[in-house]
Amino acid sequence: MIKFNEKQQFDSVKGALALRPQIEKAADDIYKKGFDKIFFIGIGGTYASSMQVVHHVKEMSKLEVYVEHAAEFIASGNKHITKDSLIVYSSVTGTTQEVVEAVKILKEIGCTIMAFVDEPDSQLAKMGDYLVSYVLNEQLKFFMFMDRLMFLNGEFDDYDDMYAEFDTYLPQALVDVEVKADAFAQVFAQKHHNDDIHYFVGAGNQWGATYSYAMCYWEEQHWIKTKSIHATEFFHGMFEIVERDTAVTIFVGEDTQRGLSKRVVDFIPRICGNYEVIDSKDYELAGISEKYRGHISHLVMMAVNRRIDAHIEKINCHPVEIRRYYRQLDY
Amino acid sequence: MIKFNEKQQFDSVKGALALRPQIEKAADDIYKKGFDKIFFIGIGGTYASSMQVVHHVKEMSKLEVYVEHAAEFIASGNKHITKDSLIVYSSVTGTTQEVVEAVKILKEIGCTIMAFVDEPDSQLAKMGDYLVSYVLNEQLKFFMFMDRLMFLNGEFDDYDDMYAEFDTYLPQALVDVEVKADAFAQVFAQKHHNDDIHYFVGAGNQWGATYSYAMCYWEEQHWIKTKSIHATEFFHGMFEIVERDTAVTIFVGEDTQRGLSKRVVDFIPRICGNYEVIDSKDYELAGISEKYRGHISHLVMMAVNRRIDAHIEKINCHPVEIRRYYRQLDY
Repeated sequence: MIKFNEKQQFDSVKGALALRPQIEKAADDIYKKGFDKIFFIGIGGTYASSMQVVHHVKEMSKLEVYVEHAAEFIASGNKHITKDSLIVYSSVTGTTQEVVEAVKILKEIGCTIMAFVDEPDSQLAKMGDYLVSYVLNEQLKFFMFMDRLMFLNGEFDDYDDMYAEFDTYLPQALVDVEVKADAFAQVFAQKHHNDDIHYFVGAGNQWGATYSYAMCYWEEQHWIKTKSIHATEFFHGMFEIVERDTAVTIFVGEDTQRGLSKRVVDFIPRICGNYEVIDSKDYELAGISEKYRGHISHLVMMAVNRRIDAHIEKINCHPVEIRRYYRQLDY
Repeated sequence: MIKFNEKQQFDSVKGALALRPQIEKAADDIYKKGFDKIFFIGIGGTYASSMQVVHHVKEMSKLEVYVEHAAEFIASGNKHITKDSLIVYSSVTGTTQEVVEAVKILKEIGCTIMAFVDEPDSQLAKMGDYLVSYVLNEQLKFFMFMDRLMFLNGEFDDYDDMYAEFDTYLPQALVDVEVKADAFAQVFAQKHHNDDIHYFVGAGNQWGATYSYAMCYWEEQHWIKTKSIHATEFFHGMFEIVERDTAVTIFVGEDTQRGLSKRVVDFIPRICGNYEVIDSKDYELAGISEKYRGHISHLVMMAVNRRIDAHIEKINCHPVEIRRYYRQLDY
């Protein structure tokens, strides 16, 4: 398998799960102090991850949790954010300009800041009242944090049981997904590496990932045009441009919105002969109980997509590190 | 001018503004009774209009106002919606399947229902505790309703003054926009009627309109591929696929997020030679004070876009009424 280091992948997830005592300590402390609302602040990929975790919480909880776009906040403000609000963000570099500016304002308001930043010496790391610093696994870190808060709020009885399973089985389960997906991913990449435009459809805790996979991977890293569309919105306009040869991929997860994506899967063969379905249910996830699969189906999808990316990068001879414009030009 | 009836356009807006006593009566009654939160329920085009008004309120108010997607609500619920919540929706036909189903659930919860439905005898009209029935002008109706609630909430001192101006000047001002825009729109349509894909960029109270114009007009009615992108997100991935010949239109409004769209306008000439800018500021709006222009720049944009649509329809010999799939097939 190209661009795949099994041990490294395993250790990456294992290490993220091992952050739990540290994340719980922060969450417990924050919950004890209290807050009015929680705002996940992001932009681009971190905005997308924020949408995912906010959807996840909305499915289960009465906690008031919202996504706030960093640049929109700077421009328009948000009168619901107070000194009692909890701000959560994630950043790899810890230097994203719009997020830095937004957090400066939020600190002046007096919000409590929970920071997940890969680079511990960066500006965004230092701005956190609480900091968890560990590479990658953004969604997992967000979900762990909010799951703990929901547990403390009396809304997640299975919390300990679920994470005991994840600690034991999840790292290997996700490695197994990549291994199983690789042959499919190669065929997929061969077929779609030169698409004029590729449509990605998703829902639920997958929607943020659908938006982000289209934009932050295919557009930003592979330079292939895409449009992402929510499975429910697909039927309200967008599908009129789908014909026999339109390239469409539908992500199907296992949370409450599985049915919304399945509706597209059931319909699309009537109008399109060039579609793909990636369904997290097709992957075993040994050791993970049925009832917890919906919580991690976005991680399954990400593992499959990682394989597709590896093959597209190779076929297109286009290193995913290169950018035309992002951080190359002033804007 | 093709497909343009000045009197009909004038009367349409005039008639919508004349709904104000009726809208105020409903708003006053609802405000007096009280509510915990307000949820705009929509799907497709009405989801987009909901995003616009919710953004508008967020700029000015502490009222808790959110967009809830009808189909997502049916699938996932929303634990923040209670018997004390106010539900607002708009529908042309009054029969949109997902909205009907969602409102049935919301009525069982015991929410108060404010309905704007063009067809007064339809199912969604009959489900409203309050009903305003008038054709078209969805955004104007939404904004009038929420502006009144913000006024009652002590957050809109200029309310009477602004609507006095709108009553007197807005119908003609919007007609004038269409007349002025027509020549530009014809050139635009000539240049872009056959684009492989067209990108629309917007922000602020324009963002919902950007999303909707791309999807509900170009995709659904003209069968031309599009992608809509928020002006801030443009710089976080998507712009990597923009090259010399990529067709991009940037909508620039006059609310707090004008600067976000302007940033794209300032940057794009460096990487693209096939872009268009539609700036509401280029239109006079005689009689409307500077400070109120931001409240209606989305209506200016809609007037310009109406001219573009008329010309594309003609050039492409593609009647905008026809659908391949929407309400033609079961799905």
